[in-house]
Amino acid sequence: MCIPGCLETVRASLSRRAIPIASNGLRPAADAASASPAKAHAVRTNTGAGPFTSVLDLTHTLSPAFPVFPGDPVIEVTPFATLHDDGYNMKAWHLVEHSGTHLDAPIHFADNGASVEAIDAATLIAPLAVVDITAKVQHSADAVLSRDDLSEWEARHGRLPEGACVAMHSGWGMFAITDPERYIGRDTDGTLHFPGIANDAARWLIEERQIVGLAVDTLSLDHGPSRDFPVHRLWLPSGRWGLENVANLDQAPAVGAVLVIGLPKVKGATGAPVRLLALLPG
Amino acid sequence: MCIPGCLETVRASLSRRAIPIASNGLRPAADAASASPAKAHAVRTNTGAGPFTSVLDLTHTLSPAFPVFPGDPVIEVTPFATLHDDGYNMKAWHLVEHSGTHLDAPIHFADNGASVEAIDAATLIAPLAVVDITAKVQHSADAVLSRDDLSEWEARHGRLPEGACVAMHSGWGMFAITDPERYIGRDTDGTLHFPGIANDAARWLIEERQIVGLAVDTLSLDHGPSRDFPVHRLWLPSGRWGLENVANLDQAPAVGAVLVIGLPKVKGATGAPVRLLALLPG
Repeated sequence: MCIPGCLETVRASLSRRAIPIASNGLRPAADAASASPAKAHAVRTNTGAGPFTSVLDLTHTLSPAFPVFPGDPVIEVTPFATLHDDGYNMKAWHLVEHSGTHLDAPIHFADNGASVEAIDAATLIAPLAVVDITAKVQHSADAVLSRDDLSEWEARHGRLPEGACVAMHSGWGMFAITDPERYIGRDTDGTLHFPGIANDAARWLIEERQIVGLAVDTLSLDHGPSRDFPVHRLWLPSGRWGLENVANLDQAPAVGAVLVIGLPKVKGATGAPVRLLALLPG
Repeated sequence: MCIPGCLETVRASLSRRAIPIASNGLRPAADAASASPAKAHAVRTNTGAGPFTSVLDLTHTLSPAFPVFPGDPVIEVTPFATLHDDGYNMKAWHLVEHSGTHLDAPIHFADNGASVEAIDAATLIAPLAVVDITAKVQHSADAVLSRDDLSEWEARHGRLPEGACVAMHSGWGMFAITDPERYIGRDTDGTLHFPGIANDAARWLIEERQIVGLAVDTLSLDHGPSRDFPVHRLWLPSGRWGLENVANLDQAPAVGAVLVIGLPKVKGATGAPVRLLALLPG
C-alpha cells in the first residue's frame, strides 16, 4: 500500500491551497463555525518541521504475553462476534489503562491533573530527542538517565527543542519481546531492576527547558528499584505526560524526528495504550 | 504547553542533521542493526508533505454516553487503583473494538484479512480528502457519497491524492454529541437512518484510484438502511481500512491536510478506538 508518486501529488496540492491560520495559531472564527458543542479548532503544534518522508513505529504489539508491572493484569481479548455466526468479526478487550506502550496522564499521580481527553492535542505532536544511555546500562541494570547525560546530549546536538519529548534509549526495550522476565527484572527479594530517569534530570527539564513529555523503553519512568516513584510524582503533577514501554528507540535519530502520539480519547482516563509514530525527514 | 519558538528550533535542528534513507524508503541495514526480533524499519510514508504548523483533532471523546451501533455494548470504565489507597490512579476498561471514533481493519469482514497490528504503518499517515455531502443530507438522512460526488470533488480540487484517505463529511457527526438518538437514527420499524458511502463509489476508488482508507462521520461506512453492509464487504477484504464516528470534519480542509491515525497496536484486533490528528500546513 506504499504508493509511488503520492509525495509529489501532495506537494502539488499544497501549492494550490493555503489554509488560513491566525497569528495566534487558531483558525479564524468564521472558518471554524459549527453547530457542534464539542468545538474543535486547529491549534499550533509544537513543531512546524517537515517535510517527512518516512515513519518509524515506536510501538510494541500488545497481547496477553506483553510484560506488565507486577500486580497489574494482562490484557484479555475475547471474541464478541464472528464472521461465520454474525456476519463480522469483533472482539472485546478488558485491560488496565497502563498496558503495553502507553501514556501516563497527569491525573495518574495527581487527582486534579489532566485526564487523557484534556491533554492539549498540540503537545501530542512533539520533536523527539533521544538520549542514549546504553553504555552505562551495560554496567548496571538500575542505571538512570542523569543530568549529565542531558548536558552531553546538548553538547552534541544543541539545545533540547522547545516542546520536545525527551526519550531514554537504554537498550532495555528489546527484552519486552526476547525475555519478558528480564524486562520486569524482579530479583529474589522482589526488587525490580531496569533503567529509568533520574529525579534531578526530570527537575532540570521542568525548570530549565520547555519539555512536554518523557519517554522510556522500560516499564516505568522511575528505575526498577524505586519504591516511591519520585519522577512520576514530580513530572506528572507538573502537567506533563510520560510514555512507557516505548519500542525501537535504537532505530530513532537522536534529533530530527517528530513524534505523533496516537492517544485514544477516553473520558477521565489516567492513561491509555497508544500508537507512537515517529515522522522522519528525508 | 504550546511554546513559542519551537518551530524555529526544530527547523534549525533539521538543517544540522540529515537522516539517511535509501531510495527504497528503508534505512540502510547497518544503521538499523538491532538485537530485537521485532525488527522495525523506517518506511516511506504516503506523503512527504509539510511543513505543518497546526493540528485539528478529528476524534470524539469516548465514554459510556457515546452512541453505539444497536446491539453493541457501551464502554465500561471502572476504578482499578486510586491515589488515596494505592499511590496512583488507574482505571480498567471493558469495551468492544469498534467503539467511539475507531478503525475497521480488513479482518473485521474477512477472516484472512489483516488485523490491526499487521496494517502497514505507512498507510496510517495519509493525505486527507474531505468530500462534503451536507447539502444532500438536508434532503435525506439516508443520503450517500456517490461516484458523482467524487467526480465533482476532483473537478474542484484535482485528482484524489495517491495513498489518501477519503472522508465523507455529511454533517451528521455533531449529533453524536447533541442528539445521540438521532445519530443512531432508529425508526419505529427498527431501520436505521444516517448517511454513508455508495457501493459504486467505493468500487471506483478501489479500481480507479489508489486510496488506503475511507472515513465517515457516522456509525458505519454503509448508510443506515443497509442490512447487508455491501461497502464493508467490498472495501475491507480489499486490504483497506475504514474509520467511523469521525469528528469535526466540518473544520477540515477539502484537501491539504495529512491524517495521522493513532491506532493502538493490539494483536489480532479487528479494529480499535483511535486518535485522529489532522496535520495542517501553514
